[in-house]
Amino acid sequence: MRVRGSPAKGGAIRGSSTKGGAIRNRARSIRLAVFDVDGVLTDGTLYIGPSGEAFKAFNILDGHGVKMLQSAGVATAILSGRESEAVRRRAAELGIATVVEGAGDKLAAFEKMITGLGLDALACAYVGDDLPDLPVMQRCGFAVAVANAVDAVKSAAHYVTRASGGRGAVREFCDLVLAARESRG
Amino acid sequence: MRVRGSPAKGGAIRGSSTKGGAIRNRARSIRLAVFDVDGVLTDGTLYIGPSGEAFKAFNILDGHGVKMLQSAGVATAILSGRESEAVRRRAAELGIATVVEGAGDKLAAFEKMITGLGLDALACAYVGDDLPDLPVMQRCGFAVAVANAVDAVKSAAHYVTRASGGRGAVREFCDLVLAARESRG
Amino acid sequence: MRVRGSPAKGGAIRGSSTKGGAIRNRARSIRLAVFDVDGVLTDGTLYIGPSGEAFKAFNILDGHGVKMLQSAGVATAILSGRESEAVRRRAAELGIATVVEGAGDKLAAFEKMITGLGLDALACAYVGDDLPDLPVMQRCGFAVAVANAVDAVKSAAHYVTRASGGRGAVREFCDLVLAARESRG
Amino acid sequence: MRVRGSPAKGGAIRGSSTKGGAIRNRARSIRLAVFDVDGVLTDGTLYIGPSGEAFKAFNILDGHGVKMLQSAGVATAILSGRESEAVRRRAAELGIATVVEGAGDKLAAFEKMITGLGLDALACAYVGDDLPDLPVMQRCGFAVAVANAVDAVKSAAHYVTRASGGRGAVREFCDLVLAARESRG
Repeated sequence: MRVRGSPAKGGAIRGSSTKGGAIRNRARSIRLAVFDVDGVLTDGTLYIGPSGEAFKAFNILDGHGVKMLQSAGVATAILSGRESEAVRRRAAELGIATVVEGAGDKLAAFEKMITGLGLDALACAYVGDDLPDLPVMQRCGFAVAVANAVDAVKSAAHYVTRASGGRGAVREFCDLVLAARESRG
Repeated sequence: MRVRGSPAKGGAIRGSSTKGGAIRNRARSIRLAVFDVDGVLTDGTLYIGPSGEAFKAFNILDGHGVKMLQSAGVATAILSGRESEAVRRRAAELGIATVVEGAGDKLAAFEKMITGLGLDALACAYVGDDLPDLPVMQRCGFAVAVANAVDAVKSAAHYVTRASGGRGAVREFCDLVLAARESRG
Repeated sequence: MRVRGSPAKGGAIRGSSTKGGAIRNRARSIRLAVFDVDGVLTDGTLYIGPSGEAFKAFNILDGHGVKMLQSAGVATAILSGRESEAVRRRAAELGIATVVEGAGDKLAAFEKMITGLGLDALACAYVGDDLPDLPVMQRCGFAVAVANAVDAVKSAAHYVTRASGGRGAVREFCDLVLAARESRG
Repeated sequence: MRVRGSPAKGGAIRGSSTKGGAIRNRARSIRLAVFDVDGVLTDGTLYIGPSGEAFKAFNILDGHGVKMLQSAGVATAILSGRESEAVRRRAAELGIATVVEGAGDKLAAFEKMITGLGLDALACAYVGDDLPDLPVMQRCGFAVAVANAVDAVKSAAHYVTRASGGRGAVREFCDLVLAARESRG
């Protein structure tokens, strides 16, 4: 975990930090949580059959985390570079109202999304894993990298999850936000 | 592993304990073993395709354990928050007669299940992994959490398996019950 | 690894042993290699969809090992407790001529198989992972357990692979047999 | 990692080396990167259903690496011993123009491929994992083995990736080549 803007000493620390208070402040301030799909809501595996992508592998713990986040009043959204009926199915199941797919330029898609929702970028969290996610992470209020993210993405994150994408990373993020909100006092 | 009701010192110990005798007593007393599905009979991965959930990933060792448990006279049941034809297929294959799905309130579904079967909650074991499982685990006679369960579920369990869901956790539970029954004397 | 008949000291040693010569003798004597499927040629995961088992997950390295074994003059066979079109597909692809499925009693099926092939049990190797494999392993000349086998199966094996089923265990077995045959002199 | 032609001391070192300069020279000289499929672009698992191979499991990070390599002016190709519509789908998605499948003799297929492209073998990298890949690896300018390759393939490689096939090995290779080209000066 690392607070962006401060010089990082010794690389990203996962899960806990002396900077925990700053992270908690960022986590409790968000109104919208935006998730990348491949590598974040999945482990990055693409299951491709004779007629294209056959399915995606999501995680049940992540799903329960997303629902708890929504119950606590945090909106949720998906922002993906690919297009997938499986993602739309899963989003519908979880009640994720905002799903933007096929985003070649993720920052432009993010700006359009938050303008439509009437939200400031600082009130948004983004969870990502690869280089196309960087511009959004540098723009939003709370930037989170999954454990399996590439190094440049981890370096740009306020928080790096202990869990990997598709293996509970999103649940860990949700639990962090929920705990921060409960400690608001 | 931890005996509920005693103050837990140092967190859950897996697989063995000085409290082994108490666990053995609980394990040998059960008449019905109830399993959650996602994260317990599977590793929690949801394989979702264009027309919904494509399949579930079960474990062959678990299946043999369930059959041995039945042969030893312990009834088996499934209690799931989701609905899945794959679960009904697997249950039929294993001879699991009682399958309750789409249970929004797991405790209510559990109470109805054991009333129907004429069993006391103390004669039932439940194996779970996430927060919706907690009320049933606090009610039944032998509460088991899988290795990949969330912390609150592990804390509420009498026993935490070494193996993860879908990777032999259910087999480990079955072997534990069978060994306890054989040591009855 | 452990030589059956000798008292095992300290449990099974994997991959190498002071008893390496005895293993080599057993490995080089076999004329037929018989493989269990689930947990041996796969990692034991059963992918079950709305209409039954959707597919099985085999390993490419195992496949190349099986072909090399056949080229060296060792016959290959499959002996499974389940039935699966996927297994028949994979067996055909690899040129495995003998495929016995749905074997409730594996020892009876094994005896019938080797009688049909005109082979002595001592000229056969068997690779297994679970209790139903035990009788065949106690009967054949070279009994091999995969790394993910249950303890009783490991204890009954002449050799325990370092690799797990579906992750190269069968390739490791094939390489062992091939190396033993090359060292025949 | 190991420079071929030099006596290897202590086996292959992964990821970094005192021979780093030599590796960098090889990496920056390539004009074409050729990838094996099973075990390299996947983890070697074959998902086989009732009607043959159901799908292949690719990796999203690898895909982004391949695209970055192409943008930097390095051509990409696939050379596989098997045939798969899934591979052709994934290759099309990534803009991999040259796809050779069903290659029983990989060296012959490689020679034909580079002749057609007007390239010298020394200007080509090859990433492989198993014995059929060896002849191509001994012929090309930059031979790379994935972490899950068999020992003989690792020994023949100039570089062994830290990551396994299907788990980022190809991305690691792409990043290595891209970094070498950027350091050209």
